[in-house]
Amino acid sequence: MNQSLYEYCLRLGDTPLILSQRIGEYCSKAPHLEEDLAITNVGLDLLGQAENFLIYAASIKGKLTADELAFKRKEKDFRSFHLVEVANFDFAYVLVRQFFMDVYHNLLYTSLCNSKDETVAGISKKSIKEVRYHLQRSQDWVIRLGQGTEESNHRLQVAINELWMYVDELFYDNEIDNEMIKEGIGVSNHDLKTDWFKIVTDSFNDAGLSTPESIPYTLQYGKDGFHTEYMGYLLAEMQHLPLLYPDAKW
Amino acid sequence: MNQSLYEYCLRLGDTPLILSQRIGEYCSKAPHLEEDLAITNVGLDLLGQAENFLIYAASIKGKLTADELAFKRKEKDFRSFHLVEVANFDFAYVLVRQFFMDVYHNLLYTSLCNSKDETVAGISKKSIKEVRYHLQRSQDWVIRLGQGTEESNHRLQVAINELWMYVDELFYDNEIDNEMIKEGIGVSNHDLKTDWFKIVTDSFNDAGLSTPESIPYTLQYGKDGFHTEYMGYLLAEMQHLPLLYPDAKW
Repeated sequence: MNQSLYEYCLRLGDTPLILSQRIGEYCSKAPHLEEDLAITNVGLDLLGQAENFLIYAASIKGKLTADELAFKRKEKDFRSFHLVEVANFDFAYVLVRQFFMDVYHNLLYTSLCNSKDETVAGISKKSIKEVRYHLQRSQDWVIRLGQGTEESNHRLQVAINELWMYVDELFYDNEIDNEMIKEGIGVSNHDLKTDWFKIVTDSFNDAGLSTPESIPYTLQYGKDGFHTEYMGYLLAEMQHLPLLYPDAKW
Repeated sequence: MNQSLYEYCLRLGDTPLILSQRIGEYCSKAPHLEEDLAITNVGLDLLGQAENFLIYAASIKGKLTADELAFKRKEKDFRSFHLVEVANFDFAYVLVRQFFMDVYHNLLYTSLCNSKDETVAGISKKSIKEVRYHLQRSQDWVIRLGQGTEESNHRLQVAINELWMYVDELFYDNEIDNEMIKEGIGVSNHDLKTDWFKIVTDSFNDAGLSTPESIPYTLQYGKDGFHTEYMGYLLAEMQHLPLLYPDAKW
């Protein structure tokens, strides 16, 4: 078994998994029905991407299923970004978090389409079609609400300022990344940074929103198994039924 | 095994168990430090009462521990009142819910001290000493905040009006109650109703608060295994670690 590839696929799966769980919680709470359906569909796409990567991870590990990885792993074994763990405080938070992740996933999957690992490349090619729509949607909303009323602009800005501290993690490469880059399977997150900032700041400029100063400290990172306080509560909810009924079948 | 006595003890244990879990969530969120310590201690007393009744229930059932009853039972097998499942919306909700339960537990345990079942009587005698203090505390707060500012009076009244729909369940006797009453082990909840209302309405009168009209509909009841939407989330949090680490020891 290739332990690094297994870890890398866990990470590729865990971030959309946790984000889709957060989005699932928001179901029926969006500002209007069309948006409620849209964001729920984004969540379903992300769940599909997560499933594909976790199925691949499970097949590398052997004697494991994607469901076991999702529902029976401990918190410290999850490899998701802190950003996707953050609670759904209001629509602005949900939207800004989504916009940040959509820009990131577009750049990431575009690069991973050239992965030497055929499965990683294949899942990325399938996923890129979905996340292009996601980005179009979240970018439109950022510009529309930024240019909207004083209230809508202010609420977006609050969410941007608060979520900014989680952004740096997206561009951090650890040992697993470096090994995967060397093997031609993975991509450097650090190399995505310039493009990510350009897309985000251009959108903020269009929307009349400010880009915060860079954060002078770093957090311990999700991909190393450290998580925010939000994570335990999220997993408790996500994993409760499969743990209580361990032999249940869909 | 006496199935009815087992069910009866589950119920006596489940209500303080779920209430103590709710109070645990409130830890560090009370309006000031002394109150935070006080409410947390009330929660610990309730957890002790729950443990005593669940240890007895487990011993009746055999091959079971109190921990298994608390952490591995399904939602539909819990016998707690709906009132104790309600979320901690603000201090007024926490306080009014506690006051309602303190009055109830004082009346219940006083009666159960005369139970023909020595263990039930013994746990009740031990518990009554604790809940007398709980009632003194919550009743003092109701009167103080009712007589306080317009804001404090209003917030208590909102909590009273909202929680009133859960009160009727406290005085409902089902088949298990009737069987336990016949055996001289249990007491009629219905018989506690007049005293409960007198204590509560006298306090409300002292506090300048109104007693709501009686509710024209009934809910399906917790002691029959039906629960509010709050319950699943509460159990997910309460049971997550024991389910994820099924063989862990304290």
